[in-house]
Amino acid sequence: MMHAHIGYTPSDISLWFLQSALSDRVHLTWGDTPPPDGYDVLVSGRPAPELIEDNDRLHTLIIPFAGLPPTTAHLMRQHPHIAVYNLHHNAPPTAEMALTLLMAAAKQIVPADQALRQGDWSTRYDNLPAVQLRDKTALILGYGAVGAYLGDILRALGMRVMGIRRRHHDTENDIYPPSRLHELLPQVQVLISCLPGTEETTGMVGAEELASLPRGAIVVNVGRGAVIDQYALYDALKSGHLHAAGSDVWYTYPPTASDRTSTRPADAPLWELDNMVLSPHRGGGGGNDDVERLRMEALAHTLNLLATGQHVPHRIDLDLGY
Amino acid sequence: MMHAHIGYTPSDISLWFLQSALSDRVHLTWGDTPPPDGYDVLVSGRPAPELIEDNDRLHTLIIPFAGLPPTTAHLMRQHPHIAVYNLHHNAPPTAEMALTLLMAAAKQIVPADQALRQGDWSTRYDNLPAVQLRDKTALILGYGAVGAYLGDILRALGMRVMGIRRRHHDTENDIYPPSRLHELLPQVQVLISCLPGTEETTGMVGAEELASLPRGAIVVNVGRGAVIDQYALYDALKSGHLHAAGSDVWYTYPPTASDRTSTRPADAPLWELDNMVLSPHRGGGGGNDDVERLRMEALAHTLNLLATGQHVPHRIDLDLGY
Repeated sequence: MMHAHIGYTPSDISLWFLQSALSDRVHLTWGDTPPPDGYDVLVSGRPAPELIEDNDRLHTLIIPFAGLPPTTAHLMRQHPHIAVYNLHHNAPPTAEMALTLLMAAAKQIVPADQALRQGDWSTRYDNLPAVQLRDKTALILGYGAVGAYLGDILRALGMRVMGIRRRHHDTENDIYPPSRLHELLPQVQVLISCLPGTEETTGMVGAEELASLPRGAIVVNVGRGAVIDQYALYDALKSGHLHAAGSDVWYTYPPTASDRTSTRPADAPLWELDNMVLSPHRGGGGGNDDVERLRMEALAHTLNLLATGQHVPHRIDLDLGY
Repeated sequence: MMHAHIGYTPSDISLWFLQSALSDRVHLTWGDTPPPDGYDVLVSGRPAPELIEDNDRLHTLIIPFAGLPPTTAHLMRQHPHIAVYNLHHNAPPTAEMALTLLMAAAKQIVPADQALRQGDWSTRYDNLPAVQLRDKTALILGYGAVGAYLGDILRALGMRVMGIRRRHHDTENDIYPPSRLHELLPQVQVLISCLPGTEETTGMVGAEELASLPRGAIVVNVGRGAVIDQYALYDALKSGHLHAAGSDVWYTYPPTASDRTSTRPADAPLWELDNMVLSPHRGGGGGNDDVERLRMEALAHTLNLLATGQHVPHRIDLDLGY
């Protein structure tokens, strides 16, 4: 019997989703107070040190979302014998958000909607440009769970899809290593970042990279904000070099709950641009039940694999940061 | 040599697209003044009667877009020996617009964007509902060129797709006749109309049909406005029975060019609703070169088939109106 402890108290519906899919080889506990006899697996995104230390049985930490918070990275580097895994349950909702931002940016749906609410049809008659996606080429930075799911959708839209990933290249299927980025950029009309935030990815898309895209290209970011230089993005949108952009991830987040209605998401005034679509990091899907069901099913699946000694996907390399 | 006359003067780029794809068996003329010796094929959406009458050679009219304008229907019923065809070149851009409206409605991207422009992140933290499309079921009304193209994209999103069409049912592939509508509605979370405007389709989706959808459903219209009763749609959105809706087609259009900045698109105040996405009939793609290229390639293809006596798709049945 493997003992897994969740370091917080899930909602009733979360527990119901989890327990419906959990093997009877897993003994489950939850809450702030850890069981006195220890546990084999901890589920927590930002575990308090006392949940990790003084527990010789603990061999695995599962972060129940995608990404590695810096405090967790720091803590877990001190416990290198504990394997750390992510859940990538939110690949479908994140890919759906990327598609939403791509379509909204391509068709400039926000300014068209805002004008028609005022009885103004001029975006129809003045031919506000709408980019057709069919027959265009997309480059997906970070061709992992989100990127591959999105790539299949874009192919159904009649697009050619290329991807960049650090591991597991497959040039026959247009999946390339990062060293090919600058050669690929001039060939793509759509650039989508699904990259995690690491030292290596910060600023990977700057003024030079945006200038390498053909005029009229579209940029979408559902990875981490800092991958794309915000001032370079602002300039490329303002000048009209880019047709439009959409982002679900940002440069500044509300530091406390009381700042949630008054926090500019960036220093560059991207919010002043009609050809920028802004979404407040809703890609993971927030608290809606569909996403919570996916999260808990992915957690149950991971725990079931661990309990039977099978290979578990999405292990994090603490040095690479993802 | 078949002689085709275009009843207007296309732009230089349109002619370039057309002539690049046209067989040398087609002799082409264009302009308001018809050639004195007549012609075999006329290309015009709303032909003046003098372009149709007094021309014994004329056997085919090609309407260079989808749909049958009422004045054209009236005129052509007086000339039943002339075959009338549509071009469905704009299936890809129209399907892309349907997808744009569906994603924007599902994820409520417009209110989320408008709030974040003001520094307001509350749609993230308050969990403004975002419907996940994966594993949901869509019903497409009018499973023709647009509907089938869209259906393939929605399947790539992980949706089950059902269609309704008047001709060519295929129940094994979930394509049903209109008589099955009321039985299917309770099973679908997404309803998309691609229906043309005919006597039969007007008001096909009214209060009863919207009430038959499960709570939280999404409705999208890229066919003709009058297919969906505007007051029933308003009530279903206002009450929260529908999660959201999006429409590219309307109940009122600007009667003249001077009304283009001051025409309410409906009588029911749909523009007051946050969960309604409004687009001013931009689905066909307007004047952008991508769509014009598709239109002219489709026209060349149709003319090439006619010139060699082959079967031509998209013939209109003047009695059915599509």
